[in-house]
Amino acid sequence: MSASRDDDPRIHGIKSKIRVVPNFPKPDIMFQDITTLLLDPEAFKDTIDLFVERYRGKNISVVAGIEARGFIFGPPIALAIGAKFVPLRKPKKLPGDVIREEYVLEYGRDCLEMHLGAVKPGERALVVDDLIATGGTLCAAMNLLERAEAEVVECACVIELPDLKGRERLKGKPLYVLVESH
Amino acid sequence: MSASRDDDPRIHGIKSKIRVVPNFPKPDIMFQDITTLLLDPEAFKDTIDLFVERYRGKNISVVAGIEARGFIFGPPIALAIGAKFVPLRKPKKLPGDVIREEYVLEYGRDCLEMHLGAVKPGERALVVDDLIATGGTLCAAMNLLERAEAEVVECACVIELPDLKGRERLKGKPLYVLVESH
Repeated sequence: MSASRDDDPRIHGIKSKIRVVPNFPKPDIMFQDITTLLLDPEAFKDTIDLFVERYRGKNISVVAGIEARGFIFGPPIALAIGAKFVPLRKPKKLPGDVIREEYVLEYGRDCLEMHLGAVKPGERALVVDDLIATGGTLCAAMNLLERAEAEVVECACVIELPDLKGRERLKGKPLYVLVESH
Repeated sequence: MSASRDDDPRIHGIKSKIRVVPNFPKPDIMFQDITTLLLDPEAFKDTIDLFVERYRGKNISVVAGIEARGFIFGPPIALAIGAKFVPLRKPKKLPGDVIREEYVLEYGRDCLEMHLGAVKPGERALVVDDLIATGGTLCAAMNLLERAEAEVVECACVIELPDLKGRERLKGKPLYVLVESH
């Protein structure tokens, strides 16, 4: 939430490309649709560049992305900063031995898995998703990384819904977002 | 299947990082696990670079990636060549109006959806996934793009299982792969 980020003219372009779809996936949810952002190559590039500018040179060796939209934003960041990409997946998708975290999310229950051995003890990790709502998914992701003895440096999302107070569930870890939606 | 690709020393590094997991997700399937490739930043970068070197300057404005592993490889390619990224998703994941294709895959039935209006008539499109097995998923993806009147230039996958003859199902469209697995 730095002044430098809010003053960045790229933020306005990014925000303007995010579509809000009412009543999806159920009534009274205002769904933040990042697929319209991806249709604009310049705005998508600006999104990745903003994250890369923040995380380059920070000795981060793990970018963990949450299925499925975290798979879209995480890998370009990982490639740019020279980190590995670790997919955190829904149950029964990863073929190797896994650790698992169950969690409650905005509309239902879910579960995330991470491959055993994907992260080494002491590695510095960034967690990436498109959006933070109640923070349950990001919290589960952080738990997976910490159980593997990695250090979670920060969580990074394109969009925050601050009214849902997800930031308060992140166990004191910093959260960096590009856009807030009320 | 050009000689220049097979001679490229980066291919051997990529192939060596792909893990084969027997009997996943069901008996007698030798699962090709690209998550171990993603753990090696250099090999993952080489993978993306090989695709970018092939597609840069080819006037491709759409990279369509198939959920979920196509979301990992497609966006870095799209960003590097200045194309939009269009996610092709499992049912009920995309919030806007969609077109849908059902298909049969190696172990079951499935369905892909694409947002209406994501692609404009006449756009040149690349379809990206991690692997081609029987070709059913890629064929459904191509059908979606063609129904939107885009021109599918090529399909690009990291891995081909040539014994399953998926290449023959691609309606004569070219397929480019980095690694074959028998």
